Amino acid sequence: MGGISVQTTPVPGLLVVHLDVREDPRGWFKENWQREKMVAHGVPDFGPVQNNISFNGRAGTTRGIHAEPWDKFVSVGSGRAFGAWVDLRAGDSFGAVFTVELTPWVAVFVPRGVGNSFQTLEDATSYTYLVNEHWRPDASYAALALDDPTVAIPWPIPLAQSEVSAKDLHDNPRLAEVVPMPPRRT
Amino acid sequence: MGGISVQTTPVPGLLVVHLDVREDPRGWFKENWQREKMVAHGVPDFGPVQNNISFNGRAGTTRGIHAEPWDKFVSVGSGRAFGAWVDLRAGDSFGAVFTVELTPWVAVFVPRGVGNSFQTLEDATSYTYLVNEHWRPDASYAALALDDPTVAIPWPIPLAQSEVSAKDLHDNPRLAEVVPMPPRRT
Ligand SMILES: Cc1cn([C@H]2C[C@H](O)[C@@H](COP(=O)(O)OP(=O)(O)O[C@H]3OC[C@@H](O)[C@H](O)[C@H]3O)O2)c(=O)[nH]c1=O
Ligand SMILES: Cc1cn([C@H]2C[C@H](O)[C@@H](COP(=O)(O)OP(=O)(O)O[C@H]3OC[C@@H](O)[C@H](O)[C@H]3O)O2)c(=O)[nH]c1=O
Repeated sequence: MGGISVQTTPVPGLLVVHLDVREDPRGWFKENWQREKMVAHGVPDFGPVQNNISFNGRAGTTRGIHAEPWDKFVSVGSGRAFGAWVDLRAGDSFGAVFTVELTPWVAVFVPRGVGNSFQTLEDATSYTYLVNEHWRPDASYAALALDDPTVAIPWPIPLAQSEVSAKDLHDNPRLAEVVPMPPRRT
Repeated sequence: MGGISVQTTPVPGLLVVHLDVREDPRGWFKENWQREKMVAHGVPDFGPVQNNISFNGRAGTTRGIHAEPWDKFVSVGSGRAFGAWVDLRAGDSFGAVFTVELTPWVAVFVPRGVGNSFQTLEDATSYTYLVNEHWRPDASYAALALDDPTVAIPWPIPLAQSEVSAKDLHDNPRLAEVVPMPPRRT
């Protein structure tokens, strides 16, 4: 195996994982998550129990910003997305933002309490993630408006031209109204 | 949640899982693997440690037939594939075949020792799977030629028009030459 590498970011505990993607005439192959190698590189041994996939038909589809009370390991299986994360945990880093393009070569470990969102940059983008708690329809957690003016995420495609769910368009508060999630576990 | 359902097949331990896919104007969302619900429906609590993704550029890309010594949970994150499995474990069911179309609604649990393969039915098909052992480049396991005349898998696209790796084209024996994998664990 060639190598993977892991980088820290301005959001404590949020890690960018550079994957080893093998290309050939068929397409490409990657170990998207590999417990042993990733733990050796500093990714938490987070114990996933669920794998979710969202398929997004058109470029410009935007989902978020959701800070569920479980950790996530996110990446793409086809297409590309602009990923954006906002720290919604109580503490000094509340409101810190990080963005990176999710190509097949890039995965992100998102600690619980950090708001997760993405906008697809190509049609037919498949977004896949592992989580370490089972989803509960009644789970309560912080969310943030995609167009919050304080964090001002530089969405590549204007939100007005974007496909967004009714919930994400109307129900999520601005940063000042967010009830912070519990502080970072150390 | 609406329901999932799980079906047995002629290959002992090989299970078809019908997933609950939620469609909306953005595309679709699925719990591709959900430990608790799936175990309640009879899927083994197999303990994945690795998630692999292969992206396949063109319809007709064919990969297999590989019977690695670990269990797999396979599905698609975009596109569609024709999936084919051949039992390569020592015992009465050696040579038994099962095929099903892998749409976003269908996942398959493949027990170790069962040969796994697929042919993509659309361009840009992302094939994703979870396994419960870390891959080792030197792992030894049974493989079977894609064009084996005994099992005679009815590939929708002729193999001659298909993108296949050099290894899968030349290195895999016919059924009569396969050294069987260990029998099914009970
Ligand atoms: C997250 C989740 C959702 N669902 C259902 C509820 C809806 O019927 C459907 C889609 O749910 P949404 O809340 O609209 O999900 P989405 O807006 O896509 O957000 C999800 O993907 C982006 C992620 O940032 C976010 O954490 C996650 O909640 O799937 C499940 O059945 N299980 C789940 O785990
Ligand atoms: C399976 C695997 C492969 N690799 C590397 C080896 C090659 O450089 C590259 C592609 O490997 P191939 O052996 O060509 O994989 P492929 O033909 O796609 O077969 C895989 O996908 C289809 C599955 O049926 C099969 O089990 C699995 O081996 O990835 C890894 O680094 N890790 C892995 O887990």
